[in-house]
Amino acid sequence: MTDISDKGMKIAIVGSGAVGSYYGCKLALDNRDVHFYLRTGYETVQRKGFEIRQDTDSFYLHPAQVYASTTHIGACDLVIVALKATANSMLRELLSPLIKPDTSVLTLQNGLGNLEQLAELVPAEQILGGLCFVCINRVQPGVIENYLPGQLFIGAYHDAAAARVDELVSMFCRAGVDCSAARSLEASLWKKLCWNVPFNGLAIAGGGITTDIILQSEPLKELARTLMEEVRTAAGVLGHDLSDAFLQHQFDVTASMGPYKPSSLIDYLEGRAVEIEAIFGEPLRRGEAADVPMPALRTLYCLLQHLVHERG
Amino acid sequence: MTDISDKGMKIAIVGSGAVGSYYGCKLALDNRDVHFYLRTGYETVQRKGFEIRQDTDSFYLHPAQVYASTTHIGACDLVIVALKATANSMLRELLSPLIKPDTSVLTLQNGLGNLEQLAELVPAEQILGGLCFVCINRVQPGVIENYLPGQLFIGAYHDAAAARVDELVSMFCRAGVDCSAARSLEASLWKKLCWNVPFNGLAIAGGGITTDIILQSEPLKELARTLMEEVRTAAGVLGHDLSDAFLQHQFDVTASMGPYKPSSLIDYLEGRAVEIEAIFGEPLRRGEAADVPMPALRTLYCLLQHLVHERG
Repeated sequence: MTDISDKGMKIAIVGSGAVGSYYGCKLALDNRDVHFYLRTGYETVQRKGFEIRQDTDSFYLHPAQVYASTTHIGACDLVIVALKATANSMLRELLSPLIKPDTSVLTLQNGLGNLEQLAELVPAEQILGGLCFVCINRVQPGVIENYLPGQLFIGAYHDAAAARVDELVSMFCRAGVDCSAARSLEASLWKKLCWNVPFNGLAIAGGGITTDIILQSEPLKELARTLMEEVRTAAGVLGHDLSDAFLQHQFDVTASMGPYKPSSLIDYLEGRAVEIEAIFGEPLRRGEAADVPMPALRTLYCLLQHLVHERG
Repeated sequence: MTDISDKGMKIAIVGSGAVGSYYGCKLALDNRDVHFYLRTGYETVQRKGFEIRQDTDSFYLHPAQVYASTTHIGACDLVIVALKATANSMLRELLSPLIKPDTSVLTLQNGLGNLEQLAELVPAEQILGGLCFVCINRVQPGVIENYLPGQLFIGAYHDAAAARVDELVSMFCRAGVDCSAARSLEASLWKKLCWNVPFNGLAIAGGGITTDIILQSEPLKELARTLMEEVRTAAGVLGHDLSDAFLQHQFDVTASMGPYKPSSLIDYLEGRAVEIEAIFGEPLRRGEAADVPMPALRTLYCLLQHLVHERG
């Protein structure tokens, strides 16, 4: 097993958007050997490094080890996948130079289906998933704004990876990340969808609006609640019970976020690929396959497919 | 009973938008004594009359008897209400100078709830409703484009008005309108909603799109079908069975219409009031009150309320 308490552990960040850059910088500033694969902004970040802006303080990583190709990174002990789920078809090519027999692969991607796609490339017992309850945006190449440094939950895709979970949790905690082991990775993914489905979805379908507008509109707030209940029902039938208090907490924490643009809205407005399938399509298919009617989600999914397609 | 075979019958058109102007002109050109109440474009129409543009021919009514106030029209034998449903709060004031003890009142308005609002102002046995299966737009003051001169169905709100239905049908037919008696006014209103709910709704929620775009998008076409099925189910539970063939016909006729802008979309884009309650809210409330789940319509209704409100 990889000794991740060893500072010499080599880590690759595959996809250095907001999430990948943020966690990669936290680890690098804890003296980990972090290598960032960047799709966009490579030259800027090579020159200026990363800047993580926070309310009360900011931090910088300069120089940063950045790469425009994973081939130049080579085999790693840990690969953190933070690509958009819409780029998963590139995973085979991107991961191939990074993987050795015991490499741990941690996906921090949104939505459902990512673990299964990784499992086609890497043995299941090396795969982990992480759920980031953060509000974080890349505002320029290498510049990340962090509004809510929330919890990171890490879980194993396969029971055999359980020991790796504890080691990664320790590593992130030492780096100052509020990180815990998820009791169930699948349950955690559904919990995150309770936020992402209504708020990412209605931000686009509502005409390009921030989350505060959703909460201020009675009909949209009602619809957000309906969507969340559908996700909760599907999660429950699939074995993951979510409490009323958890659902209410999603609204409370959103109220504290002010005029926040969910990542899907930013992608939508900037003409980038939107994670429609991972966040909306796959949960819908899994719920309906389990005989859970999800008619509000189906309606939203139909509208989003059109809106995203039409925009292009 | 009003003798509507009498050329001397005095008719008021309350609300001379596309529908009111079109039918008023047809009747006036058949030598009926038609008085148009206009909210907008009064001076233009007074000067230039009406122009009805059609594919193969156009027709004109000039001079037209137009009024900026119903007080100057005075009591009529027949009042045709073609206001937008969103202006129904003005009905009491507008109708009061026009109504005598036996005046027939025919509403050609979209959606549900209009008959009930008229019944607060006029005895039920004088109230009729008409369903216009037309594609018609006002493109300038006094200028109406008619793309599909479809059928007009007229029905009685109350059994006691049945004889009036036959007389009005005869009058419209003599004026060259393809007009028939509706076997059930309520059923006809639900039939029209089978088109209006999906196509008016998705034209707005889909980002301001014409009906051909809805038909070309697989997810939107699926959603249109789902919405139509919900309306059909509600209609069925309320006693009005609609056939599969009728539903399919809605798609077929829409395909023949090309890039058509539903009236609600035009209202939406031009910043005018949109008939959200008559077309979406009231059918939803009636369906749900009859224990028919209408989750796609509820989702659409929530989104439309926000989009229309936000636009203003």
